[in-house]
Order: sequence, then C-alpha cells, then structure tokens
Amino acid sequence: MTRTVYLNGDYLPEDEAKVSVFDRSFLMADGVYEVTSVLGGKLIDFNGHLVRLERSLNELDMEKPEAFDELLEIHRKLVELNDIEDGLIYLQVSRGSAGDRDFAFPDPELVKPTLVLFTQNKPGLADSPAAQAGIKIISIEDIRWGRRDIKTVQLLYPSMGKMMAKKAGCDDAWMVEDGAVTEGTSNNAYIVKGGKIITRHLSTDILHGITRAAVLRFAREAQMEVEERAFTIEEAQDADEAFITSASSFVMPVVEIDGKPLGDGAPGSVALRLREIYLDESRKVAI
Amino acid sequence: MTRTVYLNGDYLPEDEAKVSVFDRSFLMADGVYEVTSVLGGKLIDFNGHLVRLERSLNELDMEKPEAFDELLEIHRKLVELNDIEDGLIYLQVSRGSAGDRDFAFPDPELVKPTLVLFTQNKPGLADSPAAQAGIKIISIEDIRWGRRDIKTVQLLYPSMGKMMAKKAGCDDAWMVEDGAVTEGTSNNAYIVKGGKIITRHLSTDILHGITRAAVLRFAREAQMEVEERAFTIEEAQDADEAFITSASSFVMPVVEIDGKPLGDGAPGSVALRLREIYLDESRKVAI
Repeated sequence: MTRTVYLNGDYLPEDEAKVSVFDRSFLMADGVYEVTSVLGGKLIDFNGHLVRLERSLNELDMEKPEAFDELLEIHRKLVELNDIEDGLIYLQVSRGSAGDRDFAFPDPELVKPTLVLFTQNKPGLADSPAAQAGIKIISIEDIRWGRRDIKTVQLLYPSMGKMMAKKAGCDDAWMVEDGAVTEGTSNNAYIVKGGKIITRHLSTDILHGITRAAVLRFAREAQMEVEERAFTIEEAQDADEAFITSASSFVMPVVEIDGKPLGDGAPGSVALRLREIYLDESRKVAI
Repeated sequence: MTRTVYLNGDYLPEDEAKVSVFDRSFLMADGVYEVTSVLGGKLIDFNGHLVRLERSLNELDMEKPEAFDELLEIHRKLVELNDIEDGLIYLQVSRGSAGDRDFAFPDPELVKPTLVLFTQNKPGLADSPAAQAGIKIISIEDIRWGRRDIKTVQLLYPSMGKMMAKKAGCDDAWMVEDGAVTEGTSNNAYIVKGGKIITRHLSTDILHGITRAAVLRFAREAQMEVEERAFTIEEAQDADEAFITSASSFVMPVVEIDGKPLGDGAPGSVALRLREIYLDESRKVAI
C-alpha cells in the first residue's frame, strides 16, 4: 500500500509529497515537529502535543499553519487513509519557502508555513520486545544548541548519537553536559534509587516531554516519590533501575549504561509498572 | 527570467526543484552546504570551498554525491544558464531520502545524497554600498551546537540572530561564548588594534572561513601583523576598527558594536585595504 501524506491541504501519495528546495526547513532547519502515537486507531496525548507545537511556534515567532485548527481531523483522516491500528503520526511545520535563500525570516503575510504530516505503521507498537528485554545506553557529550525545549528539526547530533550507540552495540545514547545527564537522543531519561524516581528538572536544557509529564503525574498519583533534578552517569550506573520515556517508546526500561548492567540486568519493576499504568491510562483517554 | 536550479543531475526551472518531504535535510538538518561568489562571471575561491565541502562530508560520514567530480562544470553551467555576472552559487548536499523518517543514517549503498545548487544574481556584488558605510553589529549569546567547524544547515540560531540584529536597527550579530566573540551569524569576526589584526583562532567553535584563510594570507604577505586569539566585546569596542569576512561579503567594515561607534565611526583603513587586496587578488585567480 502506498502511504498517503498530508502536505499543505493535499492528501498525496508519499512519492509525490515534495517541498521546494527553498523551503526553510531544508535550507536552514527552520522548522518544528511533533510525533503522536496511535494505539488501537486512536491518538495518544494529542492535546499535549498540540499545546507544545503551539509553544514551539511562538518561541520561534513562527506563524501557525492555516490548518492549525483542523489538526485533529487531519490526524484522524491520515489514520483512516493509511489504515493505522498502531503507529506514529509525524507532523512538521516549516517557516515555508520565500522562493529564495535568506537568513532573515520572510514576511509572514507573504510566506505561509509548510505543513506536513505522515504516518508510520508500527503494528504491536505497545508490545515492543525491547520493553521486555530493556535497552542498552552509552553516554556521549551533549553538544546541541541551547534551546532544546523548542522541538526543532535540528536533529543532526541526536542522529549522530544514535549512530554512535549503534556502533557500540547499544540502542541509544544519553547526553551529558557539565557532568550531568540532560536526556536521551529522542527521549527523557530517568533513574530509580530506593524507590525514588529521579529525572532532570525542566529548563531550556531538555525537551519538555509530553510523555514525561503524563508519566510523572501517574507516578505521583500512584504515591511514588519523584525528584526532579540533574543526575550523573555514575549515579545512574549505581541506581536500582533506569528508563526512558517518549511518545513512541512510552516507558522503556534501561538495563545497561556504558557497559555496566543496572541492578540484576533485567528491566526494573518501577519502569514496568509505569509502562503499564501509562499505556492503560493513555488508552482510556485516547481520542 | 526563471532561474534554473540543479537537482540531482537535472537542470530545472526553480519552481520545479523539489525534494521529498522525507529528505533528511528537511526532517533532521542532515546536510552541509557551501556558498561561492561569482565576480565577472568567474568563481572566487572555488577550490577552497570544494575542499571544505569534502571535509564537512567526511566529518559527518556522509557520502560524496555522485557528481562530486563535476562540481566545477555544474557551477559554470549554472553561471551560464542564469547569466550571472556577479552573484552567488549555493550548494547543498543532504544525506538524502530513505523514503521514511529514522534517526539512524540510511545505508549509503541504498540511499544516495541529494545534491542541489542554485544561483543568486547580485549585480555589483563587490561594490556594495554597505562596504562604504560599514555595518552595525549587536552581540548575542552563542548557543549553537559544538561543531561549528562543520558547515551544516543547522542555521536556525544564526537566522534568529539576524532577526535580533534587524529589530535592534543593526545589520548583524556577533556571537559570544564564555565571554569571548566566536563569530558573526554567517561570517568571521576581526578587530584591529595598533595596526594588529586580531581574529579568533581555528577550532570547533567557529567555521574555518575560506575567505578568512585568504584574507589572513594576503594580510601577512602585506606585512600586516596578525594574531589569532579570542577577544571580548569590550576589547572590540575599544579597538581602532573591526570587520567581518565571508564568501558573499568579502571584507566588510564594522563601524558600531552594541551602540558604540568604533574609532571615528567610519570604515577603517585596514579593512578597506584588505577588501581591495582580497578582491584584486581573488579576481586574478578566479576560474
């Protein structure tokens, strides 16, 4: 089946979904994005992603795309057209194409944003074998720009980090700045010590994860202790367990950091319980 | 006249030059670029740009585009087709489109880089009125990623910097990290004090400017003293003069920094002399 992609009002076969070489996301990474999970044909945390998208646009003085208020319908139509039971919907807003290259932002009256959405079919997304086995992490230096709270498409270094992890026989990388873990390449990072869940506090240093917010809320509702502060790799290696959260991996146990197995080397009970709660609760309110 | 753009072997009308929404430069800023000046229909410093392009590709484990060895011919053909007497040629290599989105680099055997080149017609490029008047600079914090020596398309923050300068009624911004100037948003930064030219030493903190290398060589050949080291904004404000260099602005005098005029507020003699030498010498060896 050829995938149907949404581009600026049109639903197109994926190989016809093209943007100008003058589009500012192509020429200067001037774009923001969101990824929303689909489980059982329904959208997980849709409103959270929408709110964050609006914030990203505001932070960059980027106009809302014309179809902003129709984003829910567009998501649903893509789910339907592409027959997605479980999977992801990727959305990107680019500042658009002024028909030439210039560092200065184009006049928003004249140049409208580019809006692209496409689906990724992932049957059994919530039953990933990785969640049973846990994932292995390496640490790398965090050399990204300073506004990681804005979800921009400046993803070259996270990509490089995934490749470094792959070369080391691992699944992902945690980034370290000034001695403390910031986050994973496309996820937030957590450790658990003595029953307490520790994850970095919000700032411009990390993405304000939609899944992070939900998981911490569920954890607190379940009377788990949560501490939001920076932690080191050494502290993580000495923790009882560790995990990551993201819209596409939900809650994923980490079983090894820089070659050192955590606890007994198997996924931890807190991570597994939070994964179960997150999936149960999110499915209940999926739209 | 409709511009002709080069895209992966084809010469296309500019409005037909389109790339897939799955192209990695669009989705994750996974691309590198070069800008070469054209004066009198000839290419300035072409070989320098080619060498730096190859280095950028190597640093990112990106394959050379198939047409790498034909880049000179492609540049020349675009100059001819677009009737460029004075102007710029922009070149971008993207890691290409794997037909889907994934942080991991695609297999280079299966996915070939995207190669795009286009011209910008700038009649009288070397006689810019800005060079007579000088430009005004503001300073901003440098929050870019750590590998600025690789000429990637991660240009969102430089774009934001240009907008901050514009809002302040100025022309450009110099970025400051740990108290010292790194560079301008799309150029290298220099000050002159007591006849000595001071510019930041090469490292991963700044772009290794092709124009910078040529200008420093010409300065030394003209018996000017050059010191390559970091400097502060305060030192720059106290300097006799200042200037920037880039492929598109050559040598451009700076007459004001953060509201403070430099020297007598007019372009400095060292900047103007270097501009003349650079333009004369570069034209002689243009190809």
